[in-house]
Amino acid sequence: MTFTLSAFRDSPDRGRGLARDMRVRWALEELELPYEERLLTFAELEKNAHLERNPFGQIPTLECDGGLVLFESGAIVLHLASERPGLLPADADARARAIAWMFAALNTVEPPIWERAMAQMTEAGEPWHTARLPMLTERVRRRLRQLAAHLDAKVWLDGAFSAGDLLMVSVLMRIEGSDLLDAEPALAAYLARGKARPAFQRAFAAQYAVFEQSRSG
Amino acid sequence: MTFTLSAFRDSPDRGRGLARDMRVRWALEELELPYEERLLTFAELEKNAHLERNPFGQIPTLECDGGLVLFESGAIVLHLASERPGLLPADADARARAIAWMFAALNTVEPPIWERAMAQMTEAGEPWHTARLPMLTERVRRRLRQLAAHLDAKVWLDGAFSAGDLLMVSVLMRIEGSDLLDAEPALAAYLARGKARPAFQRAFAAQYAVFEQSRSG
Repeated sequence: MTFTLSAFRDSPDRGRGLARDMRVRWALEELELPYEERLLTFAELEKNAHLERNPFGQIPTLECDGGLVLFESGAIVLHLASERPGLLPADADARARAIAWMFAALNTVEPPIWERAMAQMTEAGEPWHTARLPMLTERVRRRLRQLAAHLDAKVWLDGAFSAGDLLMVSVLMRIEGSDLLDAEPALAAYLARGKARPAFQRAFAAQYAVFEQSRSG
Repeated sequence: MTFTLSAFRDSPDRGRGLARDMRVRWALEELELPYEERLLTFAELEKNAHLERNPFGQIPTLECDGGLVLFESGAIVLHLASERPGLLPADADARARAIAWMFAALNTVEPPIWERAMAQMTEAGEPWHTARLPMLTERVRRRLRQLAAHLDAKVWLDGAFSAGDLLMVSVLMRIEGSDLLDAEPALAAYLARGKARPAFQRAFAAQYAVFEQSRSG
């Protein structure tokens, strides 16, 4: 099998592993699947060649043997996890619950984190930013409290490490080291456990190498 | 098989079918699976009995025979679509692409629509709302333009109607009748096609009956 993963040539996160190709790299590493990279500039994302891979002009995309081309990090991780064991339980009910956690990571926990991060990136200089920030922060805190209450003393969200944990840890990376996360020690420890996995570290090193290369290029 | 679907006892959308149980009702109707309702007040969403079904205290949840309990509308629709034919293609590659459209609906198209709707619901009276609205609107328009460019003259997103279309149509319902949608006639027609499906109409009638009941109760 050959996989080609698209990623930013110059990630705006400066090597912190926040771009969404990181999730796919991590899944590929967990499943021990080798892959090649298709590095794209921001201008190339808007070109037809890439829009044919992803109509929304985003990374990541995954090109697979036989011509299948996928977009959406969640869909790509689910596809890979369905292809071979390692990221989804064999038991059908447990598998369905792990997939529910994938959607929860991307649809319930990530949106308020992303909205707050975007406001800080694009509206920090606006006169209203200080007034809006507590509202945005409370939306994140509420989800983190609920997630921490569920996690409690568990190691992972539901039994063994799964694609649900992979995505949830990826989503939490964006608030790593913040007061938001530090207020929930169970989540900070959960994030640290995820990042300590050898597959995570290989994936992180691979995306960091792209950053280093772009910096020296 | 018996399914129990949780939904708002008093939906804040006043019967417009925007609450996320609608997506699951529609999937159940497409697959001709009967279901029962578990109607919950806002206070009940925060109670332990519901938090055990969904740690984030949201609807919908689906309780299945044998004890499986799922949350997240996307995960529930995917689970149902995987159980019997009708909402996912049999071909493995086409199935993976349909699932990619499910994630695209929920992770790429819905977030800017939701963010703009939330701002209009909760910040319309704030002094900054008028200044922020064009930015929020342009984020939605960009995704709609890209979606319309992909859809072009196609009937559905990728071949036959799939769970990807079901979720995308559901997401577009929130901007039905708005200038945003009217600016993209291909999408307005796509939304109308989705809503014309008999299964949609049965699902819509079922959620509307709950609204009518709550109004008279």
